[in-house]
Amino acid sequence: MNETIETILNHRSIRKFTDQSLSEEQVEIIVRAAQQASTSSYMMAYTIIGVTDPEIKKQLAEVSGQFYVEKNAHLFVFCADLSRIKAIEASEEENKMIEENLQSTEQFIVATVDAALAAQNAAIAAESLGLGICYIGSLRNDINRVNEILELPKYVYPLFGMVMGYPAHEPEKKPRFPKELIYHENTYKKHKETEQYVKDFDETLKTYYANRSFNTRHDTWTKQMLRKYKVPQRLDVGPYIKKKQMNRH
Amino acid sequence: MNETIETILNHRSIRKFTDQSLSEEQVEIIVRAAQQASTSSYMMAYTIIGVTDPEIKKQLAEVSGQFYVEKNAHLFVFCADLSRIKAIEASEEENKMIEENLQSTEQFIVATVDAALAAQNAAIAAESLGLGICYIGSLRNDINRVNEILELPKYVYPLFGMVMGYPAHEPEKKPRFPKELIYHENTYKKHKETEQYVKDFDETLKTYYANRSFNTRHDTWTKQMLRKYKVPQRLDVGPYIKKKQMNRH
Repeated sequence: MNETIETILNHRSIRKFTDQSLSEEQVEIIVRAAQQASTSSYMMAYTIIGVTDPEIKKQLAEVSGQFYVEKNAHLFVFCADLSRIKAIEASEEENKMIEENLQSTEQFIVATVDAALAAQNAAIAAESLGLGICYIGSLRNDINRVNEILELPKYVYPLFGMVMGYPAHEPEKKPRFPKELIYHENTYKKHKETEQYVKDFDETLKTYYANRSFNTRHDTWTKQMLRKYKVPQRLDVGPYIKKKQMNRH
Repeated sequence: MNETIETILNHRSIRKFTDQSLSEEQVEIIVRAAQQASTSSYMMAYTIIGVTDPEIKKQLAEVSGQFYVEKNAHLFVFCADLSRIKAIEASEEENKMIEENLQSTEQFIVATVDAALAAQNAAIAAESLGLGICYIGSLRNDINRVNEILELPKYVYPLFGMVMGYPAHEPEKKPRFPKELIYHENTYKKHKETEQYVKDFDETLKTYYANRSFNTRHDTWTKQMLRKYKVPQRLDVGPYIKKKQMNRH
């Protein structure tokens, strides 16, 4: 164990922040940390938008439905970005092939992963400085609107936000699946074992929800997932991304 | 600056490893670190396969074309995994909606990001222990073959590998785009500025390639990208993922 691993294992999402803002130096080092993440074939296929304009924050908070998208020290939006490749000068024939590549699912994965790795570096760097963070997937509640608000060009889409600031609450660490469920050896484990681990985890989680210091409830992982997935979830994201010329084949 | 941020900023991909293997405790803590990453709506939509079987490693190295996929202390394969949601008991009607959700681009993003965040935590944890890592996107050179080798069920796809071990070389840190290109304020920056930053970066990189201690060459970022994107890149990934019942709409 060391300081870095302690930081990583101590992660919990923070949704309430004090009024203290971040210094320019903090933002600088956090972005540098993000940029140092691995990147597929050196593409660096992402853009980070730091949102400080209160009006834009407010609009994004409306999309997400989360007050903390407005109330935080700093809001980042991580975008997958293939537009820099598109901008490279090339012959007509080369351009055709470049476009075919950029519009593939493979390149959609590349840009999405590049953005995610950068974001996780930013998260860890921030937490090591005593800051708290929360990923904001709910920007995808209305991804077309976010696209407009942030004026994103073709070949760029907003993957998620991240709010950051000095924590004003201390939530308990949420349990994770047992290692056996997540970590398999050599090949993918067959389904029977999986079911048992999920059942055991439901019990663990029931106890956690019943005993935590805030917002106690009766719930399990399976019930949560069923509630969520039995109703439509952001089915406009796929068509939106195709409009952005990504993930088309 | 602190130990964690130093670890993050010190990252470089490691492709040659000593013969020293990892201890079970090291693997344990690295997987725990991975699991503590944020996860979209608590889905934990990924599976990590630790490959130790030399025959499987060899087969995966053939797919990737990289010797270090075989020669390393530990090989992880990070898979995006929606199968646990699919396994939840539900009524016929609920099941229809669950499937429609799981097959959407939105859920494809969720699982891809969950796997990527976990992987980056594993990378940072490993590097903090003095280990080196390299992401192996080239498993997607033949993703159907990797699917067979690892016996992946529906709703699961192999995102990338990660090799790990004690470094046996000390590559220089590769430059990153200037902050101005990656980090925008409030809205996405217009294209003209981008072009100039890319041109400047090409100059930076030319100097880096001409002066680094191994494999010096004449090259720029733009040239590299053009060479790569003017020929087809893994265009079978999209159709494969649709066959896995993911990213279909």
